[in-house]
Amino acid sequence: MSEKRTELGQLGEFGLINKLTSGFTTHVTTTLKGVGDDAAVIATSKNEAMLVSTDMLVEGVHFNLMYTPLMHLGYKAVVVNLSDIYAMNGTPKQITVSIAVSSRFPVEALEELYKGIQKACDFYKIDLIGGDTTSSLSGLMISITAIGTAKKSEIVYRNGAKEFDLVVVSGDLGGAYMGLQVLEREKEVFKANPSIQPDLDGHDYLLERQLKPEARKDVIKMLKELEVQPTSMIDISDGLASEIMHICTSSNTGCTIYDDRIPIDAKTSMLAIELNMDPITAALNGGEDYELLFTVNQSAYEKIASNPHFTVIGHITDKESGINLVDKQGSVIELKAQGWNHFSEKE
Amino acid sequence: MSEKRTELGQLGEFGLINKLTSGFTTHVTTTLKGVGDDAAVIATSKNEAMLVSTDMLVEGVHFNLMYTPLMHLGYKAVVVNLSDIYAMNGTPKQITVSIAVSSRFPVEALEELYKGIQKACDFYKIDLIGGDTTSSLSGLMISITAIGTAKKSEIVYRNGAKEFDLVVVSGDLGGAYMGLQVLEREKEVFKANPSIQPDLDGHDYLLERQLKPEARKDVIKMLKELEVQPTSMIDISDGLASEIMHICTSSNTGCTIYDDRIPIDAKTSMLAIELNMDPITAALNGGEDYELLFTVNQSAYEKIASNPHFTVIGHITDKESGINLVDKQGSVIELKAQGWNHFSEKE
Repeated sequence: MSEKRTELGQLGEFGLINKLTSGFTTHVTTTLKGVGDDAAVIATSKNEAMLVSTDMLVEGVHFNLMYTPLMHLGYKAVVVNLSDIYAMNGTPKQITVSIAVSSRFPVEALEELYKGIQKACDFYKIDLIGGDTTSSLSGLMISITAIGTAKKSEIVYRNGAKEFDLVVVSGDLGGAYMGLQVLEREKEVFKANPSIQPDLDGHDYLLERQLKPEARKDVIKMLKELEVQPTSMIDISDGLASEIMHICTSSNTGCTIYDDRIPIDAKTSMLAIELNMDPITAALNGGEDYELLFTVNQSAYEKIASNPHFTVIGHITDKESGINLVDKQGSVIELKAQGWNHFSEKE
Repeated sequence: MSEKRTELGQLGEFGLINKLTSGFTTHVTTTLKGVGDDAAVIATSKNEAMLVSTDMLVEGVHFNLMYTPLMHLGYKAVVVNLSDIYAMNGTPKQITVSIAVSSRFPVEALEELYKGIQKACDFYKIDLIGGDTTSSLSGLMISITAIGTAKKSEIVYRNGAKEFDLVVVSGDLGGAYMGLQVLEREKEVFKANPSIQPDLDGHDYLLERQLKPEARKDVIKMLKELEVQPTSMIDISDGLASEIMHICTSSNTGCTIYDDRIPIDAKTSMLAIELNMDPITAALNGGEDYELLFTVNQSAYEKIASNPHFTVIGHITDKESGINLVDKQGSVIELKAQGWNHFSEKE
């Protein structure tokens, strides 16, 4: 090994993945898409393909068991993977679940976790087909791989956005992040005085967004019924800013997003203001909303704009125009993704 | 959650998996085989299927970086998953690799790990198609999912062994375990006196069995060329005793294995004797050899027995006869799998 030492945080997650995987070549003709989208795509016949997506969740990094019920954690761990399959316009069919767990967890804790996994399997009509169960030296790790199917012609990649396409988002944004703020606030109160009961009243919506998100299976169904096939799509796991940058970078375009069009629920805004945060920041950089961000040809405007689940928040421009946010005063701000950089945190 | 606390070690790995997954039902008609074999099987067309296998490796549990070079670790992590695909008589095509890593690792360490992963991809002609890279609070975790293909009619499950079938093993057993003993011994010497250079001379074969195992791609090819399709098959990851029990339990049979037929390399035997161990114990319970254990109809005897890569070690019996080992004195001993029970170790 060389004596040079480059810290993991220096490259960022995407830079690191690029560095590690850039030397790999393709050996198999059925690999239609490898690293670089929500899911990989494998041809299974002339017209059909399989989609594969995988995620790893680590205690203390991705979840805190002080306020995350294990059943919810199991449910969410499945949902975040299914969301990646839907983001390719596919249908999830199976999952594998591997866990590493320390002996501080009793069997009953894992049963709770698997109850949540089972609930997600039943709700989304998918099968648990395998996995691995092993011990860890500390904490709980969950690694899930989701497998789905799609007609090749219907798969939506990140790289298909075209100039003048509309930028659309489903549902509302920032709620999951504000739910996390509620939980973190109550954790601090509890640490200061364990006899105080947590005050979660009135935050049901935000807590559900954080603890029990759903993948937008319904959006994929609606788009099919509307006969609208997005030109590009991604799920919002790291925040709107990061995801729109992925679409524009992959598609070699720019875009203009309007601050006042970004859908934010009143409960999200109210709590953000109470905590002296700009609600837009929660939507742009909060993450974990698992809504779908997609682009459509302008000809689909009527169908999309008339559907209450969708909001047109901007349009795709040429690459040279950059990735811009227009604020309420009409000022243009260049968007920068903050996303998550786990590696910049202390060990 | 109930107040009952059952320790993870009480159930054993397979008991735990059964307990956690027993409530799951099947929703998808393409799921041909879920939990319970080397790989899951998903139908992709009338005659074709996809195989999916996943494994999680945890630092301090599955590997020790004090004596495991990261490049070898990357290579081995891929190989153990491919071995599961071959054990279904399939052809691996793609892998996903997820890692969780603490900031004690520099980028250069992960580059070494991925060099090994790439070497395995190039050697076995498979594609890396995705994964996840995240931070951990301590240590390194690697979760790999391997995807392969097979004709449905050629897939070999664990449950197809029939009475009178021959029990066959490829290569030789116990070497990987004895390689581990060499490394552990040198680790203790090093801990006692760091100025002493490790004495690994003469143990190349055993060290390679432990540090750089290969999946038996060649065995699958040979069986096809011989036109022998095993009636059941499994790869030897946990030791011969554990694997033969899986085959017999799944197939609802017993078996008789002959102690003196078990193929053990002279280097394995010599070191075992030097360390006051019975070489048979290393073969039965050592694990990590990644050879293939399979059963064939007696009509294939000539083809199998004349091939130097294969050893007939016994035969399948009816269930009531039990799972037995006949030792050199002709005594019959009932086999008990020790395998690995990670959860019985201290946290």
